[in-house]
Amino acid sequence: MRELKFPILIINFKTYPEATGKRAIELARVAEKIAKELGVCIAVCPQHVDLPKVAESVEIPVLAQSIDPVEPGAHTGHITALAVKEAGAVGTLVNHSEKRVRLDEIRKVIEECRKYNLYCIACAATCREAAAIAILEPTAVAVEPPELIGTGRAVSKERPELITESVELVKKVAPNVPVLCGAGIESGEDVKRALELGAQGVLVASAIVKAKNWEEKILEMAKQLVQSK
Amino acid sequence: MRELKFPILIINFKTYPEATGKRAIELARVAEKIAKELGVCIAVCPQHVDLPKVAESVEIPVLAQSIDPVEPGAHTGHITALAVKEAGAVGTLVNHSEKRVRLDEIRKVIEECRKYNLYCIACAATCREAAAIAILEPTAVAVEPPELIGTGRAVSKERPELITESVELVKKVAPNVPVLCGAGIESGEDVKRALELGAQGVLVASAIVKAKNWEEKILEMAKQLVQSK
Amino acid sequence: MRELKFPILIINFKTYPEATGKRAIELARVAEKIAKELGVCIAVCPQHVDLPKVAESVEIPVLAQSIDPVEPGAHTGHITALAVKEAGAVGTLVNHSEKRVRLDEIRKVIEECRKYNLYCIACAATCREAAAIAILEPTAVAVEPPELIGTGRAVSKERPELITESVELVKKVAPNVPVLCGAGIESGEDVKRALELGAQGVLVASAIVKAKNWEEKILEMAKQLVQSK
Amino acid sequence: MRELKFPILIINFKTYPEATGKRAIELARVAEKIAKELGVCIAVCPQHVDLPKVAESVEIPVLAQSIDPVEPGAHTGHITALAVKEAGAVGTLVNHSEKRVRLDEIRKVIEECRKYNLYCIACAATCREAAAIAILEPTAVAVEPPELIGTGRAVSKERPELITESVELVKKVAPNVPVLCGAGIESGEDVKRALELGAQGVLVASAIVKAKNWEEKILEMAKQLVQSK
Repeated sequence: MRELKFPILIINFKTYPEATGKRAIELARVAEKIAKELGVCIAVCPQHVDLPKVAESVEIPVLAQSIDPVEPGAHTGHITALAVKEAGAVGTLVNHSEKRVRLDEIRKVIEECRKYNLYCIACAATCREAAAIAILEPTAVAVEPPELIGTGRAVSKERPELITESVELVKKVAPNVPVLCGAGIESGEDVKRALELGAQGVLVASAIVKAKNWEEKILEMAKQLVQSK
Repeated sequence: MRELKFPILIINFKTYPEATGKRAIELARVAEKIAKELGVCIAVCPQHVDLPKVAESVEIPVLAQSIDPVEPGAHTGHITALAVKEAGAVGTLVNHSEKRVRLDEIRKVIEECRKYNLYCIACAATCREAAAIAILEPTAVAVEPPELIGTGRAVSKERPELITESVELVKKVAPNVPVLCGAGIESGEDVKRALELGAQGVLVASAIVKAKNWEEKILEMAKQLVQSK
Repeated sequence: MRELKFPILIINFKTYPEATGKRAIELARVAEKIAKELGVCIAVCPQHVDLPKVAESVEIPVLAQSIDPVEPGAHTGHITALAVKEAGAVGTLVNHSEKRVRLDEIRKVIEECRKYNLYCIACAATCREAAAIAILEPTAVAVEPPELIGTGRAVSKERPELITESVELVKKVAPNVPVLCGAGIESGEDVKRALELGAQGVLVASAIVKAKNWEEKILEMAKQLVQSK
Repeated sequence: MRELKFPILIINFKTYPEATGKRAIELARVAEKIAKELGVCIAVCPQHVDLPKVAESVEIPVLAQSIDPVEPGAHTGHITALAVKEAGAVGTLVNHSEKRVRLDEIRKVIEECRKYNLYCIACAATCREAAAIAILEPTAVAVEPPELIGTGRAVSKERPELITESVELVKKVAPNVPVLCGAGIESGEDVKRALELGAQGVLVASAIVKAKNWEEKILEMAKQLVQSK
């Protein structure tokens, strides 16, 4: 139940107060409930300090929002693959638009993940960046045009060609790397469209975290995964 | 028991595997035991992902190793004051030599700490840097010449003038900000000397974390705090 | 004529196309003409690649917009004190709000400048930051609230207390370090006010670089320096 | 004569004092002399402040060591494509191991170069990184294992498979992007081997810049380009 399966819905808690501390655990539990009911894969990305408690509270995949490209040792204030692994995470995001890193660091993070048997979902701003990162063989790449993140204007509606082109480009250079998408995803309809365009999952943050009714919103989106299977 | 009191011994777990996950809790408990026995202030700085479990396991001050200069919100992969506060930390380090930040970021971190009623221990490489940061009124400044960190050559033995000058300079510009010191502290003798030179505490990492016998090593150092009170 | 004298008008060319290449030389010549006519100190800060040609074209102080905290050597893409010195610059800005650096880097840049006998004007966002940097003993500190930069709302009009407090705070901790100010300075009136509030000069960018008539605008501002002497 | 042609010898001046200011012009002239004599392509990468004088002194391709991913405007201390273009450069390096940047920044630098009709040579640490960057379609990619840079242990001797694999991988994903190599190249023999392994050129820094006799050393290396044509 900790494995990533595609299609997937990944919920990024960012550092929203609505999903910090105890509320992170609650949100993760709602996600778990729906994942089990529908039999689909929903992963949650709580903040680093919330990782261990979230991970011991639910049986769905828990991902870190980032890790640093360093091995355990004299690295004050860093996040290591070892630490998130021991905290119960099964993987991490890397290169999110709010936490961009250098190309050599993306590579090292992917290597660290491999070493500790962790999944690594690498984010990219454009089709070409997605294809570039795919060559480094992360678990999956997620295309998120930064200009749409947090806008409520879904990538699958506003920039559908970004998804199809990414899928096509990535297929050419790294056929085993699934392409996810994100940015502005607000509704089940947005998720549906993304999957129709060839994405194997979506990354969602504010639309779920800030929803009045978490269960309703997650259900609305997760249902699309069932239909696409 | 969660308050910082000076003189103080701060143990920085860094990302050492010897102090990750469950071992972080064990180390914190040893520190707590000695703090209680001797009636001295010992603070621990576990990794971010280990914060909540360490904080609920001990009744001594738990500090984050760093926080980011951002408010809660759309900041994937960042560490907020709110998050470490909810995780049970009473404060944070900032600008450690392994995680240097910009001056404006040090200022913002100190402001965030004030907002959330958190302690903030700001690190500096030289006397003048210590005085510069002291003007921003963190809880305390810690002078740690980077070239001695992790060497076993104690700042209090190798560069005693760095401590006395820092104490003097800081007293002039920010008389209420205690000066701590760190780098290469290996023995009770090193701690003793640091306190004699005017430091109101020490930051120690590898000498304790990698000690064969945590209790013995912490005791050796913490005893000096008793004698200096 | 290459020396910095206070009060001073510093013109930051940024990377504005209006002040790139040949236009940088022209703008510097206009500044030189007025500096000579009025007998006041006007310094110009062209882009790095424009430094040598500007420096050989005028006899007023030419400053780099930044240098990196590294010594000459294996540092591809960096700007060294040696290189700007050989190019004819007499100093540099450091920590401008558009190029913030770490506190330890500010310190190293100031040290490099001292080594090569270069002036160093260090920028700061707040009074306290200004005082903090002043302790590191740059040639002068320049307070520029980032939220006013480029707005046309002058710091001397909108935040006069920022100038008086900076002057006061810096006087306490580093009495020999002059305080300059910048951000939103648009008119002679703004410059006048800044000097009345205790600033020993101003940093101006867009108001001059993007002025329809460079000579007129520089004259309007530089005249204030005469009257304040 | 300003065009890049392959095979190519690129001389990176870094910030070596031996190739700063007037000495940069001299070194560029020696390179030009040999390029003309042998009829091969030699490009020089002086420091930013030395660009304009070097560019007007020679008629071989002059490249910047880096540019920043920003358009002309309010970017104090940055290097724009426009500025290096006006200074006479025909292109730039990007992502050199001593100046690594984020993947999205590499993409933006390549875009800026395209906009200003500049060449862009992108550096990479590994075969996969080289292939990843090649997808973004720079003019060429240069593989330089950081651990060999400046060692005198040539990549073509120590890690020949790195070159062949890079050539192969890049050919698959971006067949029009030539692969160069660098790191530790010391002799004509090293250059020869690199070309035999499929590289279409080499990046050399210290071996030439710090050579007792520039002409001799450049000649020794450049001759290999003739033979490989």
